[in-house]
Amino acid sequence: MSFDRLQERIDMLRNPTVVGLDPALEIIPPQIMEKHISHEGETLEAAAAAVCEWGIGLIDAIYDIVPAIKPQSAYYERLGPEGVRVLKMTCAYAKSRGLYVICDGKRNDIGTTAEAYSEAYLGAVKVGRAILRPFDFDALTVNAYLGSDGIRPFIEAAVKYDKAVFALVRTSNPSAGELQDLLVSPRPESYATSSEGGGQPKLCTLYAAVGSLMEDISRDTIGKYGYTRVGAVVGATYPDETEYLRAQLRSTFFLVPGYGAQGGSPAQAALAFDENGRGAVVNSSRAIIAAWKKGGADHAAAARAEALRMREELRQAISSHIGGSA
Amino acid sequence: MSFDRLQERIDMLRNPTVVGLDPALEIIPPQIMEKHISHEGETLEAAAAAVCEWGIGLIDAIYDIVPAIKPQSAYYERLGPEGVRVLKMTCAYAKSRGLYVICDGKRNDIGTTAEAYSEAYLGAVKVGRAILRPFDFDALTVNAYLGSDGIRPFIEAAVKYDKAVFALVRTSNPSAGELQDLLVSPRPESYATSSEGGGQPKLCTLYAAVGSLMEDISRDTIGKYGYTRVGAVVGATYPDETEYLRAQLRSTFFLVPGYGAQGGSPAQAALAFDENGRGAVVNSSRAIIAAWKKGGADHAAAARAEALRMREELRQAISSHIGGSA
Repeated sequence: MSFDRLQERIDMLRNPTVVGLDPALEIIPPQIMEKHISHEGETLEAAAAAVCEWGIGLIDAIYDIVPAIKPQSAYYERLGPEGVRVLKMTCAYAKSRGLYVICDGKRNDIGTTAEAYSEAYLGAVKVGRAILRPFDFDALTVNAYLGSDGIRPFIEAAVKYDKAVFALVRTSNPSAGELQDLLVSPRPESYATSSEGGGQPKLCTLYAAVGSLMEDISRDTIGKYGYTRVGAVVGATYPDETEYLRAQLRSTFFLVPGYGAQGGSPAQAALAFDENGRGAVVNSSRAIIAAWKKGGADHAAAARAEALRMREELRQAISSHIGGSA
Repeated sequence: MSFDRLQERIDMLRNPTVVGLDPALEIIPPQIMEKHISHEGETLEAAAAAVCEWGIGLIDAIYDIVPAIKPQSAYYERLGPEGVRVLKMTCAYAKSRGLYVICDGKRNDIGTTAEAYSEAYLGAVKVGRAILRPFDFDALTVNAYLGSDGIRPFIEAAVKYDKAVFALVRTSNPSAGELQDLLVSPRPESYATSSEGGGQPKLCTLYAAVGSLMEDISRDTIGKYGYTRVGAVVGATYPDETEYLRAQLRSTFFLVPGYGAQGGSPAQAALAFDENGRGAVVNSSRAIIAAWKKGGADHAAAARAEALRMREELRQAISSHIGGSA
């Protein structure tokens, strides 16, 4: 199943890294951008073509050392429909190179609309008698604020098409805690997952409640490594929260943003892994894709060098964390 | 400012309705779909072309009686990049007909990525020296789970480009309450908006906390009708919650889904309006756009008839609610 495929690639490459493709235009080397502007003018199409060339070069430079990429949909959508076309092309190319593709779209909606998103990004659409795959990513990030009926359509598509999702649980940004850290007192009538019965309800944080809800509703999708098809986004910038969630959510695969540029250290990221050194993948975007800005190499070579450095850094940190040889 | 423009159109047409464009493929009349399939084959491009023709016909049928449309991005994204192109074209056409366009994309992310979404949907991108508008909607729905630093970039873009957002506060779906109804006990160190100081923190629901946070961070964007640039999505299916939020969030414009097909009645929707009969817009999707399925008229004429019926129904309900003449 989907996270089994990801875990196998991680094991094979001995590298639990996902490279974040966040093509802000200042990330694109000027010579690539200028070439396309000279061909197509100062247009969104030219910028999208430059982002496409950049992404292909990056993928070629890392596909044999890194198991997965995480394109950030916002940066592609910012170039309009042509940017969305480049997102699709880039990810199809990455898959042809064997990479596992997590689309970071943080989609969310209710009922049939959540179903439409799940068909768009993980599944298929029927037009006449043809079954067509609009994007066909391996996994998608989702936001659970709307509750379980906003997530179930994604789980159904994940099961049907062998895909997965990552729900936002504890994000990596400075104001993540404003809502996610609020202490919540579950209401028995609306929150059916607490089964102890009787006594005072135990307070927990909102992010812990979201994490448990996600694990509960996906429990019958566990694969051979013990993870459900609903992973959790858990920021490396908050080590206490990461440690707590790793202990609580034994069947949940973690996607860990916030490493490097946002301040998460290797030791902090290592807390997301279980006692076997499994169950998580750590994202780095800017530190890898903007490495060329330090000079000396082209963007692809610089990204590869930084990805290799991160791999060693993570291997050591995870090895120390689990107290054995990773 | 943006909600001033919306309120003015509502006042002019005496109709606080927004028509939801949710083009599930079964909504598209078969003769339109078949025509495009016969031209372009059973492809996503053919389906997108059919959705485009359908949308233009719908807009032509309602633009003079309805102030706004709310395209549901999921249904366009489900047709791949070509669907996204049709979303952009449909909305540009709607704006040329004077409609206020709310893109229902429920976008959310942190820092620079939230900025990328805000530039994509509300603002502009610089390519070389050119300033380009990728989508240029009037408003966008957003999800606030990531806290204020995920929303501020949207507020900045809204101010700069005279736009607005609607944050999900209390959604209309059956499991909305699983998380949104949890009682929260604000942590003083992470939730800086409670300024009373001292004493026991007052419990409130998560949705009320989200609503207050949104009003607090947008307070300096109030327009001439008294509303900030951050509206709230408040489902008509939960009248108690709607009444409570209308009383609490005096400066917040409401987008009210859940009317009609989802079960919200005119009297329930009327609770979203203030004592002057202002401050809200009520969405109806399926009841209007699928009206042709009851037979007797083409899809556009059937939608117009249903939109006129809803206008009368809402006028009466709001009039009774405020106890005067609407």
